[in-house]
Amino acid sequence: MMHTIRFRPEGKTVEVPAGTLLSDAIAQAGIGLNLPCGGQGRCGRCRVVVESGQIDRRGSSRLSTVELEQGYALACQTTVQGDLQVFIPPQEAIVRHLPSEKAAVEVPALPVACDWQTNPIVRQFFLTIEPPSLSDNTTDFERLKRELARQHGVRDLVASLPMMRRVARTLRESETGEGWQVTAVLEMGTWLDGDAPPRLIDLWPGDHTGRTLAVAVDIGTTSNVVYLVDLASGKFIDSAASYNAQISCGEDVISRILYARKEGGLEHLQRLVVGTINERLQELAERNAIDLSKIYAMTVAGNTTMIHLFLALDPAYIRLEPYIPTVTFPLPVAAAELGIHICPEASVDCLPGVGAYVGGDITAGVLSSSMFKTDKLTLFIDVGTNGEIVLGNSDWLISCACSAGPAFEGAGVRSGMRATVGAIEEVWISADTYEPTYHVIGDVPPRGICGSGMISLLAEMFITGVMDKSGHLNRALDTPRIRVGEHGPEYVVAWAAEAAGAGGDVVLTEVDISNLIRAKGAIYAGFSVLTNSVGIDLADVEEVLIGGGFGKYIDIEKAIQIGLMPDMPWERFRYLGNTSVLGAFTALLCRDMRREVTEIARKMTYLELSADNRFMEQFTSALFLPHTDTAAFPSVMRLLAGRANAQGEAGSTGE
Amino acid sequence: MMHTIRFRPEGKTVEVPAGTLLSDAIAQAGIGLNLPCGGQGRCGRCRVVVESGQIDRRGSSRLSTVELEQGYALACQTTVQGDLQVFIPPQEAIVRHLPSEKAAVEVPALPVACDWQTNPIVRQFFLTIEPPSLSDNTTDFERLKRELARQHGVRDLVASLPMMRRVARTLRESETGEGWQVTAVLEMGTWLDGDAPPRLIDLWPGDHTGRTLAVAVDIGTTSNVVYLVDLASGKFIDSAASYNAQISCGEDVISRILYARKEGGLEHLQRLVVGTINERLQELAERNAIDLSKIYAMTVAGNTTMIHLFLALDPAYIRLEPYIPTVTFPLPVAAAELGIHICPEASVDCLPGVGAYVGGDITAGVLSSSMFKTDKLTLFIDVGTNGEIVLGNSDWLISCACSAGPAFEGAGVRSGMRATVGAIEEVWISADTYEPTYHVIGDVPPRGICGSGMISLLAEMFITGVMDKSGHLNRALDTPRIRVGEHGPEYVVAWAAEAAGAGGDVVLTEVDISNLIRAKGAIYAGFSVLTNSVGIDLADVEEVLIGGGFGKYIDIEKAIQIGLMPDMPWERFRYLGNTSVLGAFTALLCRDMRREVTEIARKMTYLELSADNRFMEQFTSALFLPHTDTAAFPSVMRLLAGRANAQGEAGSTGE
Repeated sequence: MMHTIRFRPEGKTVEVPAGTLLSDAIAQAGIGLNLPCGGQGRCGRCRVVVESGQIDRRGSSRLSTVELEQGYALACQTTVQGDLQVFIPPQEAIVRHLPSEKAAVEVPALPVACDWQTNPIVRQFFLTIEPPSLSDNTTDFERLKRELARQHGVRDLVASLPMMRRVARTLRESETGEGWQVTAVLEMGTWLDGDAPPRLIDLWPGDHTGRTLAVAVDIGTTSNVVYLVDLASGKFIDSAASYNAQISCGEDVISRILYARKEGGLEHLQRLVVGTINERLQELAERNAIDLSKIYAMTVAGNTTMIHLFLALDPAYIRLEPYIPTVTFPLPVAAAELGIHICPEASVDCLPGVGAYVGGDITAGVLSSSMFKTDKLTLFIDVGTNGEIVLGNSDWLISCACSAGPAFEGAGVRSGMRATVGAIEEVWISADTYEPTYHVIGDVPPRGICGSGMISLLAEMFITGVMDKSGHLNRALDTPRIRVGEHGPEYVVAWAAEAAGAGGDVVLTEVDISNLIRAKGAIYAGFSVLTNSVGIDLADVEEVLIGGGFGKYIDIEKAIQIGLMPDMPWERFRYLGNTSVLGAFTALLCRDMRREVTEIARKMTYLELSADNRFMEQFTSALFLPHTDTAAFPSVMRLLAGRANAQGEAGSTGE
Repeated sequence: MMHTIRFRPEGKTVEVPAGTLLSDAIAQAGIGLNLPCGGQGRCGRCRVVVESGQIDRRGSSRLSTVELEQGYALACQTTVQGDLQVFIPPQEAIVRHLPSEKAAVEVPALPVACDWQTNPIVRQFFLTIEPPSLSDNTTDFERLKRELARQHGVRDLVASLPMMRRVARTLRESETGEGWQVTAVLEMGTWLDGDAPPRLIDLWPGDHTGRTLAVAVDIGTTSNVVYLVDLASGKFIDSAASYNAQISCGEDVISRILYARKEGGLEHLQRLVVGTINERLQELAERNAIDLSKIYAMTVAGNTTMIHLFLALDPAYIRLEPYIPTVTFPLPVAAAELGIHICPEASVDCLPGVGAYVGGDITAGVLSSSMFKTDKLTLFIDVGTNGEIVLGNSDWLISCACSAGPAFEGAGVRSGMRATVGAIEEVWISADTYEPTYHVIGDVPPRGICGSGMISLLAEMFITGVMDKSGHLNRALDTPRIRVGEHGPEYVVAWAAEAAGAGGDVVLTEVDISNLIRAKGAIYAGFSVLTNSVGIDLADVEEVLIGGGFGKYIDIEKAIQIGLMPDMPWERFRYLGNTSVLGAFTALLCRDMRREVTEIARKMTYLELSADNRFMEQFTSALFLPHTDTAAFPSVMRLLAGRANAQGEAGSTGE
């Protein structure tokens, strides 16, 4: 018997026989629907809403009672039993525990409300000035000051010498029938304690007050992001991102610090990152048809080492005990002094950090997250090469950094790579055959595995029994995927034949697994020590905010399964995107918010884990999947128990 | 009959016959005594004190009653009539209306009392700092700030990026058994309204707080002077002076402004003056065995054009009506930015001026003169290429500039030259023979006549009748010195035979005379307009202060005779030396005084003479010797009347 299925919102209709899998009907309609786990009913990504009609659910393990009541069904586990009307929600909206890469790059809203209109860091003022005469022979600069005071109430102007040199000619070039008409661009004091006087940073004939361009920059160890912003409207205009060119001199901060010790090494690293930023600025300028010299402010968020390298401050003592940076509250520097190709007089303002391993990217993150304004006990984590963690609320903040190592960023893992085209970013393993299904960034043959892929792979290997809780592969299983290779026991994720460009099989070895477990263990130990140190139980945390470059690819469910994230309801997790650049954007728009970052940095206690015995203890306990303390991971324990039962049943059926 | 003459303080003794001229006896004793007027008894320079014994005075016209009572006698007009004890005072002490060049260069006292010890612009602080540890891991810069606050109460330190780059290494190089021990050099805020935070400008291992070097600079159109100063003790250390190398591009400000219009001209002029200052700094460094990079502050006084050229600000609009500088309150600039070879972080602070032709050299002069603190109605004049005049007291100040032209500086006068070796600086003319006696700088054959020589020559020509009050030579006189040369009527001061290097006779032509009369007329007209404009009579002025480069060579008596200076008792005139550099020195030592200069500049009214009809009137009246208004020059009139009588008597005797 044939049934008619109507799909919303596409409006398509298909006829299928009774008993057809809904996912097949969707495919027949030509509607794209991902089945990441290959139709095992395990990932829950193919959920749809059956709005009317008869169906048969084979499984619904990923659906909550509320969702079942609302009509949700997994397309790969549901058969057609009558005429149906089916709503297919946008996949990304459903799977909120794995925000897509794209969503994070799209237009960001200003995360924290602030009065940017009345208190911006740079303002442009249009002035009509009566030219001098013998009876009014005030000097050019004093005349400009006088009119700024008269027309806009701005007093005590200062200017650099190069700026002062342009005043006389620019004023005379601005002659109109109405007098001299110019736009004066003023930096309205710095963020320093005690208000500095406004500073003239540009002057040009005509009225250009419509738009005031500025940029917010995130200097990550791996990636750099630049946001182009209009201070006059408080609006984001465009963004550009790329790898930090310093990568050629080392993948992580320690190798960069070592590189900086070479003759000319520090200067070379500085030129590289400045070059990266300048290239992104050029890209933004071309795409938006703007003049770079009319960009009047820049805020920069980055970890303490990145900021030292950007400013060419010697980072040597960051690496050596007791880990001392030159400065964590850097002072603003003129763009020209750093070689940044915006208005030469514009201030480049690096946001303050807390210590050697909790930098301005973290304080920016806290700013953009609003956790400094909430009553809720909040845990903020920025997962990158290091895991930086902040715990607290509007009253107090405590932070630490756990040296996770670059494993999740692809280093120290044989088939590891960064999250770019060709990287396996998600893996599902069949509990029956141990065969994997994977998704590759860019939908091309795989070249390797990126961080999110590793988390996903690790979790699947653990849950399906491919690997035990210590990270040893179960070589007793009947599958060619588990074998002993050149580098010891390994699991084959993709065969060389299907992995063009990988130069062989894509595998995960026991050595890789061990590295990954140490990385996740360090981060979890950080959570534990931080909460312990203030006498709080990790379970009391009301909200977990995830920021940072790598953070955005983490699948919370999988991260909990391997014990990277604490086991709590998914609703408590909130993914914030690139909090570093969002914080830089917030601080750029509003002087009050800029002061707030300084307050956050001042207020935040820094726990040095290398000096803390508790960390070693917690770290050791965390070197198991999900953890030695299984009671802390009830959902994972339930899942494992469920699987064991299912396998037991399957086994007994097979017998 | 022979008499014994004992000379004090030399202790020499000679025997001479009765009736011998005392000046001959002094020469016989081998004691140098100048007779500028050649023994005519007119200049009064050969005054000595006859402490005991019998003399006969032929004349005593230059001696006051008090001086006669004290035993003063003119050596050239006194004969020996018995055994004598004679005291020969230092000549320069006596002739107080003509201070010598040397005296002006000697160690200056701080002209105005100020609390430099508690409020200097730069201070050095010695610090012992406990190195960081895991339990005290404050950053290097914050640690430095913390200790400055703890040990010296100094808060809110800032530093430039190049300075910040040195902090980590310097602190670690300063390691001693006691901890880190360093000297931090701080600029204690600028002079700007609203206190800027202290700025770290140097940091070096060890204790160097004994001496804090700084320099005060006068940039004159013709000469540059640099004072080396110790801010820690408030003491002058040494000075160096030379011509401004810009002279090669023009003698006066107008020709420099024109030169600056050429392609690269402004930058060339800037490099020249910076080069001049750097050479003087090098000279001071070598002579005093100091490290230039340890000079931590510089104040600069100069006229508005000189300051524009020093800062490479376009001076074009200073020359064009309505005469508008870019700025008269320049902002401090880092030494490195200007290419000045002192501590690169040190501020170079150009003192504020009032307008296009009343600059920082004048406000500095007013500061150093203390006239801004007195109740007395004071007239301050800085005579150089321009005559800048300030009238006022502690309540009010009004200023003007009269374009005297460069005649007194040797330009526009055929035999004119600057006051250097070979320049005739003083002239006396015999009222009988019209033969001149002159003094040449360096006691060499004359090459030309400098400004003071011209004033002296003009006065003598006028008083002896060589020239009439309109500046026309009396060609009826029986002397070969008055003749009609290639350039019209002229007076020969030195014949070619005695004037090696002059390339001919040294003469003063009627055209020269006319130029000089216009120059003196412009200055006197300035006095008149300034006093008139505030309803004051010139005679009410209680004190006349003379500063500036050329001012120091002016013989007041002669200057009054030609109507360059108002006719008042000599006691009212006070020569202050190079008030520009003295003001820069005062402002350098003390932030209160630095603020005072700004106050002076703000308070001072500027009268633009080119817009003032009264000036043209007064100028025309002043184009006579001494002036159309002879009643304003009673002493000169008396002198002329006396001469006329004497000549009448001499004439009748001769008949």
